[in-house]
Amino acid sequence: MPNTKNEHISKLKHLLSEIAHLTSALEMLQWDKEINMPKKSAEMRAQHISYLSGLIHHKTVSLNQGGLLTRLERALDKGKLSPNDKALVSEVLRDFKREQKLPQAFVEELSHETALAYGAWQQARESNDFSKFTKPLERIVELERKQAKFLGYTNSPYDALLDIYEPGMTVAELDILFFELRDSLVSLLKRIQKSKYKVDYSTLKGSFDLQRQMKFNKWLSGRVGFDLETGRLDTATHPSTITINPADVRITTRYQEDDVLNAISSTLHEAGHGMYEQGLLLEHFGTPLGTSISLGIHESQSKLWENLVGRSKAFWKYFFPKLQKEFGKPFSKLSFTESYEAYNMVKPSLIRVDADEVTYNLHIIIRYEIEKALIEGSIEVKDLPSIWNDKVKEYLGIKVPNNRLGVLQDIHWSHGLFGYFPTYTLGNLYSAQIYVAAKRDILDLEKEISKGHFEHLREWLRKRIHMHGKKYSAEKLIKKVTGEKLNSSYFTDYLEEKYKEIYRLS
Amino acid sequence: MPNTKNEHISKLKHLLSEIAHLTSALEMLQWDKEINMPKKSAEMRAQHISYLSGLIHHKTVSLNQGGLLTRLERALDKGKLSPNDKALVSEVLRDFKREQKLPQAFVEELSHETALAYGAWQQARESNDFSKFTKPLERIVELERKQAKFLGYTNSPYDALLDIYEPGMTVAELDILFFELRDSLVSLLKRIQKSKYKVDYSTLKGSFDLQRQMKFNKWLSGRVGFDLETGRLDTATHPSTITINPADVRITTRYQEDDVLNAISSTLHEAGHGMYEQGLLLEHFGTPLGTSISLGIHESQSKLWENLVGRSKAFWKYFFPKLQKEFGKPFSKLSFTESYEAYNMVKPSLIRVDADEVTYNLHIIIRYEIEKALIEGSIEVKDLPSIWNDKVKEYLGIKVPNNRLGVLQDIHWSHGLFGYFPTYTLGNLYSAQIYVAAKRDILDLEKEISKGHFEHLREWLRKRIHMHGKKYSAEKLIKKVTGEKLNSSYFTDYLEEKYKEIYRLS
Repeated sequence: MPNTKNEHISKLKHLLSEIAHLTSALEMLQWDKEINMPKKSAEMRAQHISYLSGLIHHKTVSLNQGGLLTRLERALDKGKLSPNDKALVSEVLRDFKREQKLPQAFVEELSHETALAYGAWQQARESNDFSKFTKPLERIVELERKQAKFLGYTNSPYDALLDIYEPGMTVAELDILFFELRDSLVSLLKRIQKSKYKVDYSTLKGSFDLQRQMKFNKWLSGRVGFDLETGRLDTATHPSTITINPADVRITTRYQEDDVLNAISSTLHEAGHGMYEQGLLLEHFGTPLGTSISLGIHESQSKLWENLVGRSKAFWKYFFPKLQKEFGKPFSKLSFTESYEAYNMVKPSLIRVDADEVTYNLHIIIRYEIEKALIEGSIEVKDLPSIWNDKVKEYLGIKVPNNRLGVLQDIHWSHGLFGYFPTYTLGNLYSAQIYVAAKRDILDLEKEISKGHFEHLREWLRKRIHMHGKKYSAEKLIKKVTGEKLNSSYFTDYLEEKYKEIYRLS
Repeated sequence: MPNTKNEHISKLKHLLSEIAHLTSALEMLQWDKEINMPKKSAEMRAQHISYLSGLIHHKTVSLNQGGLLTRLERALDKGKLSPNDKALVSEVLRDFKREQKLPQAFVEELSHETALAYGAWQQARESNDFSKFTKPLERIVELERKQAKFLGYTNSPYDALLDIYEPGMTVAELDILFFELRDSLVSLLKRIQKSKYKVDYSTLKGSFDLQRQMKFNKWLSGRVGFDLETGRLDTATHPSTITINPADVRITTRYQEDDVLNAISSTLHEAGHGMYEQGLLLEHFGTPLGTSISLGIHESQSKLWENLVGRSKAFWKYFFPKLQKEFGKPFSKLSFTESYEAYNMVKPSLIRVDADEVTYNLHIIIRYEIEKALIEGSIEVKDLPSIWNDKVKEYLGIKVPNNRLGVLQDIHWSHGLFGYFPTYTLGNLYSAQIYVAAKRDILDLEKEISKGHFEHLREWLRKRIHMHGKKYSAEKLIKKVTGEKLNSSYFTDYLEEKYKEIYRLS
């Protein structure tokens, strides 16, 4: 065991780098599994992945061997660490202590039960029969409540789960944010639906060669600032971002033959995630200072590029002529305004992942309200379908025809992901607030964007957000970047202004 | 530490499986580096690879912790192990003891010096200046001699190095095999060169769409029995076979726009390697019983498919019409015999990797004679260019215009690979002897091949060779499969018969 404070820090960094290299190898195996793995290699691949995951877990829970973390915590408490080392040590301690609180037997039970629940969910969904999922989900909810107890909380047990994905966020804060947001969205949606002015997304459909789409999306991802020399864009059923390391970030998108804009919004979304990962500093690779802050902040980066930029008038000015030139029909027959408005059509729908900017967060709020109530014990699993359907009727104004298109649509709960959904909406809220700050800081940002100059925005995000890793908490970062704490009004103001114009609202 | 013999075996298998999973991850990183890695990720990738290599090394040298191997060696010596366990333990012990013999400081020095030598070799080659490589190569030779001393030997120090790549092979045996072979090849080559009958490979050249070539090679690899559901074929500058595990074997080939047969022979070669790897049993994954025997036996599988099958008349009967149909010109204008003979043209050339079946092994024998003499200390590095050029003149009858096309052409020595070259020729000798046995065992094999039925041969190879892993030594295996020990006459008889007909020799 080393003796001085600096030696302890070096030792910690060394141990973290070992975990990081193993994680890179694991991510490589995961990426390849989606993209390149031969058909019949799944069983063996699962074994490699399981071994590496176990080894990473073992190395993580062994970080305190020889009392390394205990000594560093003492130095932290005594205020003896530099700002960077302080962030390093306190973030490592946070994760380490959380791990320590969960007994091994519990972790194994949860893993076992979620494996079963995932299978049950698939069957329930296929046969459109919620009852097949009731018992397994009850077990998961019970275990998640247990987990909250192990992790500890002051007010709601849901706080403990939320903290896993969005450190520092609480039910108290979310309730206020989401309550205001829900009312505002429901009211905006009603006004839009009452409007006599209609726009129609289907006018954007056509027939688009897949190879051509791929080339175009690759070009676009690079154009907005995703670095294709330290990253890749590939095709996958479920678009995602996988980071081997900040110099090797791999995003995927999916293509539809009849809808070129579907791939484009998904590419912009993943490019946003990807640029965050590429913006982390290599010198902090493997340490909290080289790691993204939270799922919410991550999602803010994807939503910013997908929506705030990608669905804006400014972007459309730059982008629509390219679209016309590259694909011709139907764009060649549409005006700028027709196409811009069609791309931004608002229409309540049953499936979260298909939702527009206005209704998307109502889908999330439904899930938030339900999972919070489940964890707090105020509703029961068996009543989920009717609760779900009532909420969809109330907030979105539509009837759920069956559970497959309702409560059974998402994979999350079967995986034990409670406390995860809210980060999607937090991403939207962060993104709007951040974008207002960007417009304040960057001269004529929208004009720049309309000319295809994305580099100022990208650099601003890199310097303000990406490069700091976990040096600041989400709460501190948002204050530092925007001057105030998270506030849903930026997002609702953005929607109000945009959709008032599109739908000619009074 | 477990107590019973079976517990020791289980423990050993468990430790080996850990090493195997890490090796799979390492191979995945290596494969991706060649095929998919973004341009600027090389530096970080090297760090991942270096960490994993170090971890694998550490786990390998730690196999005897708690005296596990010592106990198993005792059980082995007492004859207490089953045949499979006997092979398992003795092969693990062989590798382990070899590792143990090399002091850590020596391994690090060799690794350091080869890194330097590789750079020097690149520069020497680029500037066509052997003197830039003299000193580094002298250091490597010195270290290789040291290595031979550490490893131990009875007769030649070169035996110790040979044993790394072809366990059990010795200078005494090679000298006989290669002496007979060299005389036979030199004499055959002279007769061919004297023949008035000429064949011309250049008649096979044309212009071949690369996408079409790729599709065709993929089809061909699957056709001969490389399983594309447990493997892949991709494109790379240097064709190779990378094994993630026997259910995920990845081969690469390279394409030339003007020469479709170049890719085809390289695909058949790698498919041969690939089928060996796919034929190993998954149940023995990570243990010697799930690992190929030697480089020579491995090369026998690639040469068998590339040459014995791929350049045979029988194969050509099946294949030539496909080639004509798929690519048209120039094949549509050539007869069966013209094209078959052109594909088998014999012409001495300067570069080993471009050589034909007759001259290829003369290139290897030159390298063998030189590296053996270097290790035994009978020649000096500074004299290599003139020794090289003299041998090329003597065996191949051609003049070496410069060192770049001569002694500087191969990467091997700069990497410290002494004792490796002979395995290429051993592969050719094994392949001919094995193929005669296959023709004896399989009814009408050549007729089968001419009809495109490769499955009997593939299955025969799988059952006779692939599935046994290292259960038998190369020497035992070849006796078991062919009924006698390795003998160069099968190969020389094969060449004699084939080229006598092609070149109308008396």
